[in-house]
Amino acid sequence: MAYTVAPLERLIEQLERLPGIGHKSACRLAFYLLNTDKATAAEFIGAITDAREHIHECAVCCNLTDGDTCPVCRSENRDRTTICVVEDARDVMALERARDYHGLYHVLHGTISPMDGIGPDAVRIKELLPRVADEQVKEVIMATNPTVEGEATALYIAKLLKPFGVRVTRLAYGIPVGGDLEYADEVTLRHSLEGRSEL
Amino acid sequence: MAYTVAPLERLIEQLERLPGIGHKSACRLAFYLLNTDKATAAEFIGAITDAREHIHECAVCCNLTDGDTCPVCRSENRDRTTICVVEDARDVMALERARDYHGLYHVLHGTISPMDGIGPDAVRIKELLPRVADEQVKEVIMATNPTVEGEATALYIAKLLKPFGVRVTRLAYGIPVGGDLEYADEVTLRHSLEGRSEL
Repeated sequence: MAYTVAPLERLIEQLERLPGIGHKSACRLAFYLLNTDKATAAEFIGAITDAREHIHECAVCCNLTDGDTCPVCRSENRDRTTICVVEDARDVMALERARDYHGLYHVLHGTISPMDGIGPDAVRIKELLPRVADEQVKEVIMATNPTVEGEATALYIAKLLKPFGVRVTRLAYGIPVGGDLEYADEVTLRHSLEGRSEL
Repeated sequence: MAYTVAPLERLIEQLERLPGIGHKSACRLAFYLLNTDKATAAEFIGAITDAREHIHECAVCCNLTDGDTCPVCRSENRDRTTICVVEDARDVMALERARDYHGLYHVLHGTISPMDGIGPDAVRIKELLPRVADEQVKEVIMATNPTVEGEATALYIAKLLKPFGVRVTRLAYGIPVGGDLEYADEVTLRHSLEGRSEL
């Protein structure tokens, strides 16, 4: 006989739907959520509800925000001549953590992927064009992921931006810092050779 | 400038409190919970609330259940002469998955740990005694974890059960099936030698 308690099974099932959470982790999370005190559980649920209610896309760059525009677009310390185009809001967080980029962003919320029926209209490309048309913008950095779809999207946008006469650049490919040559794939190695710089 | 959106930060913080979830996983989960459709999110939150409302301890064995007693205690196919004592409800699930035990359980909800100020009264030991006093019970299997606290708890309970004249046994120690001798620690190896059986 299998030991089943319906609400517990349901909770575990729901937790298993989270990305990267297998059955064993889901069990551990379920027991944590069951055993924690009432206030902590309420806070947890409140954070989900609250985030879903208050977070939406920035009216300018489509980044996630709880205001009209995002903190980057609102800031007066950002360089308004550069726009960095990324696939999603997580990429903005990653680049902000690097603390080396001071321009604006544009979040596509996906990539063009004809194989999956995702055309240019399904991502926020048309929102980018009026921003680039603004004469302040001098450079657009394509920072889509180094995948087939990311590549294709970057090339597609670069072609669209040609008439505007802005500089369109691409993040450098190469060996990750702290990585190991031995474990780098051939394509990355080829790119790191091509992009080698003087010492 | 760090890019922060308060409700998103709060959600990530809450997810980081889950056991085994680091910052990167918390970000991934947060974006999943944000981007999923409304019904899925409601189901997820509902499962947590529901489980917390309806799950409590079985009146007999302290296992988790949504009824008065748990499915194991209610079942008419279980062997009522054996009680297996485990630390928590997850251990019941693990043993039930093995499909080899057909007796009853007793869930302690913890172990005695004088170092952390957890005495015998903080775990469900006193609930076990009247069950063993029932003359049906012939054997109590101690299945606490093979840690110092689990060991101590098992020995403490064994001593308490002595006057009842029931057989008190302990799960076997040894090398895990599929494991590697090379990676087994000395104590486990010593136990597996002591407990060796005829082929």
